[in-house]
Amino acid sequence: MHDNLHVVLVDTRNPLNIGAAARAMSNFGFRKLRLVNPYEVAYKEARSAVHAHKILETAQEYKTLSEALADCSLVVGTTSLGHRELQHPLRTLEYGGRLIRKHLHSTPAALLFGSEKFGLSNDDLSHCNWLLRIGTEGSMNLGQAVAVCLYELTRKAAAPRPEKRKPATAAELDRLTELLTSVLERSGYVHSGSTENKIRRLVRRLDLPAHDAEVWLGMIRQIQWKLSHKPQ
Amino acid sequence: MHDNLHVVLVDTRNPLNIGAAARAMSNFGFRKLRLVNPYEVAYKEARSAVHAHKILETAQEYKTLSEALADCSLVVGTTSLGHRELQHPLRTLEYGGRLIRKHLHSTPAALLFGSEKFGLSNDDLSHCNWLLRIGTEGSMNLGQAVAVCLYELTRKAAAPRPEKRKPATAAELDRLTELLTSVLERSGYVHSGSTENKIRRLVRRLDLPAHDAEVWLGMIRQIQWKLSHKPQ
Repeated sequence: MHDNLHVVLVDTRNPLNIGAAARAMSNFGFRKLRLVNPYEVAYKEARSAVHAHKILETAQEYKTLSEALADCSLVVGTTSLGHRELQHPLRTLEYGGRLIRKHLHSTPAALLFGSEKFGLSNDDLSHCNWLLRIGTEGSMNLGQAVAVCLYELTRKAAAPRPEKRKPATAAELDRLTELLTSVLERSGYVHSGSTENKIRRLVRRLDLPAHDAEVWLGMIRQIQWKLSHKPQ
Repeated sequence: MHDNLHVVLVDTRNPLNIGAAARAMSNFGFRKLRLVNPYEVAYKEARSAVHAHKILETAQEYKTLSEALADCSLVVGTTSLGHRELQHPLRTLEYGGRLIRKHLHSTPAALLFGSEKFGLSNDDLSHCNWLLRIGTEGSMNLGQAVAVCLYELTRKAAAPRPEKRKPATAAELDRLTELLTSVLERSGYVHSGSTENKIRRLVRRLDLPAHDAEVWLGMIRQIQWKLSHKPQ
């Protein structure tokens, strides 16, 4: 289960926080760390710190969030605040944690933490299936937020039943988003860049199993083919 | 309940850790911090840090642990390791947390955190009624240990909050199914009556909220419009 969880730090700036996140992972038995666009100096400093160097040694670095999430079939963003207008289902750490645990039995999931100052951007959030809310006052320290989430994921609880259906991966959902956007553009529905984020969020919220994603892809491809062939 | 808990840091050396503990307290709604024999420089630095200064301003300082615990009727020590020969009952964070919560309803309790390097000494432990074990591998960062313990103390037990989003009605899903079937027929995807059932099942599996169903209807209507208008 533990190796199915990818902790993804987005735009992290402070080396102490990267180190603290890695240490918390090691404390709770998680090993897969991914860094998206980390501040280069911070990353180097963190790697040379005392604790948790094993996790930082095997950490993977990505330029874009999309790439970092490609093989994950569940993407959960974290937020400690409730003030933003959110387009996503917001779940408590306890309830959401149970859903993630269930998922991890069979397939990879990503847990996203945004930058210290701004948290996850709207663009980052559009990649998420739903959001996990740590019910605190004020924003949390990054390393502490990681620790609390991982504690909840490993907390002993009634053993969840594994999910039977295999969920679609982020890469499959990206293909679906692209294809749908293109069909909508051709139909005159899509007018601006912000619409693609909207469509991505919409697709993520569908919570598609892998098999259904295939079927939807086939349908939309067929529609696209029709739209691009003028009638005789 | 919250003001009955005294977080007690014993022999803390690093100002960042004092600050982090105070920030975690503020995040989870606790305000009573006591410092026993802190390293003077660390304490001063922590007080001048950005976050959680309110808690540090009202923090109380003690020379001895005895004095710091005088008014508390339950004293619980924390340890992340299990290797010491312990003379005390050792409880998991989840079970022990429940006992502390119960106690806090009526009377003050203290939760002790030892120094970064050595944890609580045998002398410190002798002041404790029992010990709380955070079930991790390796020792935890002090601020993270405080955050995880306070999270457990404030965690809402069991019942998940109902989701706020209103699900789409069967009628809305039927409209979506019809519209999609018609678009697919026009695109040459649908060949027989059984396919409509297949599409209906597919649409039901999406588990759409009412608002999203509206958006999908709008999209598919637009595609249908495009398909029915021959290009010039």
